[in-house]
Amino acid sequence: MSLEVLILSTRAADYARLLTAAPLPPLALHVAASHTEAEPWLATCEVVLADPPLVRPLLDRMTALRWLQSTYAGVETLTAPGLRRDYQLTNARGVFGEMMAEYVLGYLIMHERRGWQRFLAQRERRWEPAWPGRLRGKTLGLIGVGSIGAEIARVAHCFGLRVLGYTRASEGCPHVDRYFHGDALAEMAAVCDYLAASLPNTDASRHLIDRAVLAALPAHALLINVGRGGTVDEDALVEALQAGRIAGAVLDVFQTEPLPPDHPLWTLPNVIITSHTAALSFPEDIAPLFAENLQRYVAGQELRYRIDFERGY
Amino acid sequence: MSLEVLILSTRAADYARLLTAAPLPPLALHVAASHTEAEPWLATCEVVLADPPLVRPLLDRMTALRWLQSTYAGVETLTAPGLRRDYQLTNARGVFGEMMAEYVLGYLIMHERRGWQRFLAQRERRWEPAWPGRLRGKTLGLIGVGSIGAEIARVAHCFGLRVLGYTRASEGCPHVDRYFHGDALAEMAAVCDYLAASLPNTDASRHLIDRAVLAALPAHALLINVGRGGTVDEDALVEALQAGRIAGAVLDVFQTEPLPPDHPLWTLPNVIITSHTAALSFPEDIAPLFAENLQRYVAGQELRYRIDFERGY
Repeated sequence: MSLEVLILSTRAADYARLLTAAPLPPLALHVAASHTEAEPWLATCEVVLADPPLVRPLLDRMTALRWLQSTYAGVETLTAPGLRRDYQLTNARGVFGEMMAEYVLGYLIMHERRGWQRFLAQRERRWEPAWPGRLRGKTLGLIGVGSIGAEIARVAHCFGLRVLGYTRASEGCPHVDRYFHGDALAEMAAVCDYLAASLPNTDASRHLIDRAVLAALPAHALLINVGRGGTVDEDALVEALQAGRIAGAVLDVFQTEPLPPDHPLWTLPNVIITSHTAALSFPEDIAPLFAENLQRYVAGQELRYRIDFERGY
Repeated sequence: MSLEVLILSTRAADYARLLTAAPLPPLALHVAASHTEAEPWLATCEVVLADPPLVRPLLDRMTALRWLQSTYAGVETLTAPGLRRDYQLTNARGVFGEMMAEYVLGYLIMHERRGWQRFLAQRERRWEPAWPGRLRGKTLGLIGVGSIGAEIARVAHCFGLRVLGYTRASEGCPHVDRYFHGDALAEMAAVCDYLAASLPNTDASRHLIDRAVLAALPAHALLINVGRGGTVDEDALVEALQAGRIAGAVLDVFQTEPLPPDHPLWTLPNVIITSHTAALSFPEDIAPLFAENLQRYVAGQELRYRIDFERGY
């Protein structure tokens, strides 16, 4: 009897193509892009590769489930209180850092170069010779230095940025010039030109960027959030932006997504909204990660990227 | 009798502040932000630090001139046929690469991430979850690998881009993966996802990017020009963009600047116009370079960044 594996993803066809071309143990692979397509395999699948929001309503009916590999980094959909925890949950890790780094550096450069102002001038056929700013010599503070923050730090160093890092305790990234912990987040914020958060959605990260942290930022500072919306107290952010207490914000994630059309963040000056696209799960990246974990699973080895349900990441 | 030095620049006050704080040989420093202010010193100044367009009409009246340090990299204003060549001309070099690299990488990232499309969606309060592209694994071809191209290549490697270089003969940059010379420009273009030019304005660079090179580019390719407008055959570029034969262009420089309001490039889709701001001459960068050359001049040593009037760079 071969291992029953279900793929449940909006990109299921891509995963099927990539996985059938990969070296895998013997298995029965079932492919579903919707709940209807998944229906026949719910009671039999032992291993599931799935987009978290798609699999969540089906969790309780997966009676044979022993391991679920998330296609996303963020798994708060699956670690919420009250949901079952009698299986191994692993997430996607180590594949988002490069896209996140491109995002953060690209948007920092556009901010410095007044890219948006120039883009609007162009629509009026208006030559716009305003002087650009530059990254070199500026200070970037990172809230969270996991695999994503570490990659942002590496590329930031390539551009000659000074990099600060706020972490719970870890100090392992060679591209962070100085670390801050505990109640020192506002202290770090006070010396940042840019502050970038890449934290998961947990109780500990909720509203970590609050009124006090926003008040500590210099008036010319830019906030970037590529982690989860819950990290930022959005009411406090709207107030700080409306009062001009910080220069702007580049936001990929929000407390409610999609961001409601009447939300004030849509139209505040110097706010850039990127609709949760900073780092998507490319099947080309996730499939090899799943294939490797599948080899480990079959061999009875410990899985990589295991989630602690209690901690939430 | 001390050395008579004239500063003639729109940023003259900044230069005066920076130079009086620098270690300099004994000299009489005259500061002018306009022709009127320069008038009293024209016949006596031996050394001039100047913005090329500002100094050009006064050249013939500078009877004591022996050395002119340009605040710009591009000195075609001063090397044009018919102008005097009986003095040493030096330009600004080695200080623009970092800004150029920020520009090129920033605009490449925005192109891949559909930043402009998302920016317009935001103005309609529209969530825009279209998938972004990424730099990693793509190929960037550089036309010209001087100090600017070399810095672009270095940062491009940080992002995991493959870098090709088209040069006259030089192959000295460690961040170029493969070089092309002579008539092989179209051959290089054919394998590029992005093609970026950073050439000075010379007879050799004129319309180097012509119909044949544009035709050789893949349909998904993006052209970037941060050098001088003359490098690109603009008529051929407009045709290629109108026919959709390339994906787009990011243009900082043009055959005529400011770009005339009726020029078709203003309104073509997928063209970004940045009004000659990719790398401006920050007095903070140029003043130390001039101060160092001034020490050399007084000591009778060879000046750095000397321009060959015949070659034009």
